[in-house]
Amino acid sequence: MENLIRESQKFKDLHRQTIGYINLNPLQRGGILSDDARKMISEWADGYSVCDFCDGCLDNIKNPPINDFVHEKLPKFLGTETARITNGARESKFIVIHSLCEKGDTVLFDSNAHYSSFVAAERACVNVVTTPETEHPEFKINEDSYAEKIEEIKKETGKPPKLALLTYPDGNYGNLADAKKVGGICREYDVPFLLNGAYSVGRMPINAKELNADFIVGSGHKSMAASGPIGVLGTSEEYEKIVFRKSEKYKIKEVELLGCTSRGLPVITLMASFPHVLERVWRWDEEVAKARWFLDKLSGIPGIKPLGVQPTGHDLNFIETPVFYEISKKHKKRGYFLQKELKAKGIVGIKSGLTKFFKLSMYLLTMEEIKTVADAFFDIYDKYEGLLE
Amino acid sequence: MENLIRESQKFKDLHRQTIGYINLNPLQRGGILSDDARKMISEWADGYSVCDFCDGCLDNIKNPPINDFVHEKLPKFLGTETARITNGARESKFIVIHSLCEKGDTVLFDSNAHYSSFVAAERACVNVVTTPETEHPEFKINEDSYAEKIEEIKKETGKPPKLALLTYPDGNYGNLADAKKVGGICREYDVPFLLNGAYSVGRMPINAKELNADFIVGSGHKSMAASGPIGVLGTSEEYEKIVFRKSEKYKIKEVELLGCTSRGLPVITLMASFPHVLERVWRWDEEVAKARWFLDKLSGIPGIKPLGVQPTGHDLNFIETPVFYEISKKHKKRGYFLQKELKAKGIVGIKSGLTKFFKLSMYLLTMEEIKTVADAFFDIYDKYEGLLE
Repeated sequence: MENLIRESQKFKDLHRQTIGYINLNPLQRGGILSDDARKMISEWADGYSVCDFCDGCLDNIKNPPINDFVHEKLPKFLGTETARITNGARESKFIVIHSLCEKGDTVLFDSNAHYSSFVAAERACVNVVTTPETEHPEFKINEDSYAEKIEEIKKETGKPPKLALLTYPDGNYGNLADAKKVGGICREYDVPFLLNGAYSVGRMPINAKELNADFIVGSGHKSMAASGPIGVLGTSEEYEKIVFRKSEKYKIKEVELLGCTSRGLPVITLMASFPHVLERVWRWDEEVAKARWFLDKLSGIPGIKPLGVQPTGHDLNFIETPVFYEISKKHKKRGYFLQKELKAKGIVGIKSGLTKFFKLSMYLLTMEEIKTVADAFFDIYDKYEGLLE
Repeated sequence: MENLIRESQKFKDLHRQTIGYINLNPLQRGGILSDDARKMISEWADGYSVCDFCDGCLDNIKNPPINDFVHEKLPKFLGTETARITNGARESKFIVIHSLCEKGDTVLFDSNAHYSSFVAAERACVNVVTTPETEHPEFKINEDSYAEKIEEIKKETGKPPKLALLTYPDGNYGNLADAKKVGGICREYDVPFLLNGAYSVGRMPINAKELNADFIVGSGHKSMAASGPIGVLGTSEEYEKIVFRKSEKYKIKEVELLGCTSRGLPVITLMASFPHVLERVWRWDEEVAKARWFLDKLSGIPGIKPLGVQPTGHDLNFIETPVFYEISKKHKKRGYFLQKELKAKGIVGIKSGLTKFFKLSMYLLTMEEIKTVADAFFDIYDKYEGLLE
């Protein structure tokens, strides 16, 4: 015990080494707290803080006004009849799959789906069929392939898939398939349709009903300016009683939520950031314009080009940068040179060791900061251009 | 949208109304952040903060040193071969039940088990058998009843239960059954044994191996001075590969954890508070002495007595207060008078409307504060004693 105490003293002083840098990691950009949320953290950071006045049901707490947020504001925002908070987008997906499916059932995912969708399906012991693999450079999902795959699944298993999922946008290329069309196809076949909006809910306008979706999933820490872990899950009335079914023994507890989910600071920051989130969603076009400006600018470096459907409709983008790969082969830091050079210029968030292609986002950066980032890439190219000869 | 923006402005300014009060709620007392953790919150409160240098596996992150914490310090602390962080104690329990059981299997719980254990079992579609109902005033679990019930289950289903669970202590009376004995019985029958330590891990010395437990579950926000939601789960080597099995498609992702769990501020505060937690566990006897002092003192009010096994071995206690119930019948505030009187004296955390019996905890309060609390109850009794005539 005394050894353990001594060896654990280091945990008392942990610092986030990216503080003060421009962070280009798409999964960090949408989770930065709003000023309003940041003001509240010291008051609500203790353990279970929001449960002081709980009568047994997290989403019914009136002080703080979680009840109003979860049952009034959130469904309006998501375009659903019902909503709940969960421990994250992946947990939301598992809740839906686990509620709708029996072991051995089949679900249909887009082939650009996030790994956590596959793992959620695996945890629920269901089989996943995907739409045809997407191809370089657009990696575009063909909406009609949902109909073809549903037919195939019917032929093979004797029934349609228990659920269809579309990742909107996907987390690699920021592609936004025609969700409404996919939803329409699913409706024709009477297949429940889930929109994974981990990168859209809280960033861009999105409404489940308008897109023919029965379920919508969002991520608080990824895209709603909330402290993690927290997610949201919206459902249509039709599925509310299935997904949020109550315990037989404890009548007010919802089984899939294990009674309650993201208790504490995450729900407070989600609520406190909500007005800011609504305003940024309202100004989404500006963010798309910034992303396009940046990609266009960067295309001025020989060989650099964005992948995914162009012009981009999202802040999350994937770029091919063969010149940096060529430089890395001759640089003594190898694949780490780019990250190191960027850090020296106050920029972080490109995945360690990558030079050939990588994801980035300019979300909510100012134009001045975006110019700093673009200049940094140009400077690095200029500095090492000689190595390419 | 404009309406929604206008109606959501109130979420910008949320205040915790119990700040500055002595909070007697047992589920709040162990979750108050350590000073070290509190210092770190502004640096780590953004979304996914800990994932800046993630290579795909939360518990392998080296910066901040989550890897060392989860794989070295935490198993030592829990007395297990392996440990992980989860979204909470209930999520830890579901992970174990879901990994070990098939639909329709039977598990054995103590009859004082927390509701979330039952809901976790219900979510996994397994049947729960409980030890015989415990009785007033001790509500004591009979350890030998585990053997009897295992025999019964074998007789009825043809096989022993897939899991046995003991709540240590239970969340109503703070009773600490002889876990080692229960674990020994389970071992004899080859039944995996889970200790629910939501109120012990982080408060009192507890070691899974010494208590013959295969699994131990703890709660960061309840008892480890961490910001919620976060829990811990320790397992013996035997069950590690089952519970933390990897995805077939994504080789580094653990299926039951959906790839990763409590990403963000919760894990940072859990780590930052860990030295403080070790030290308070080391001084556990002082907390038990305080609880006993308080219960003994309060017994000076006619009719007030602690329930559960006495003398208490835990800070969580349940007291019967028939005098306050009698007063409430004649008081114009009815059942709310006690809460109101306590609040006027700077004390919160007794469940709203309760006067006949309630839970409370003096955990980590100073003796001066505890005397303030005791005096408050005496003062309220004195003030309304006349109503009893």
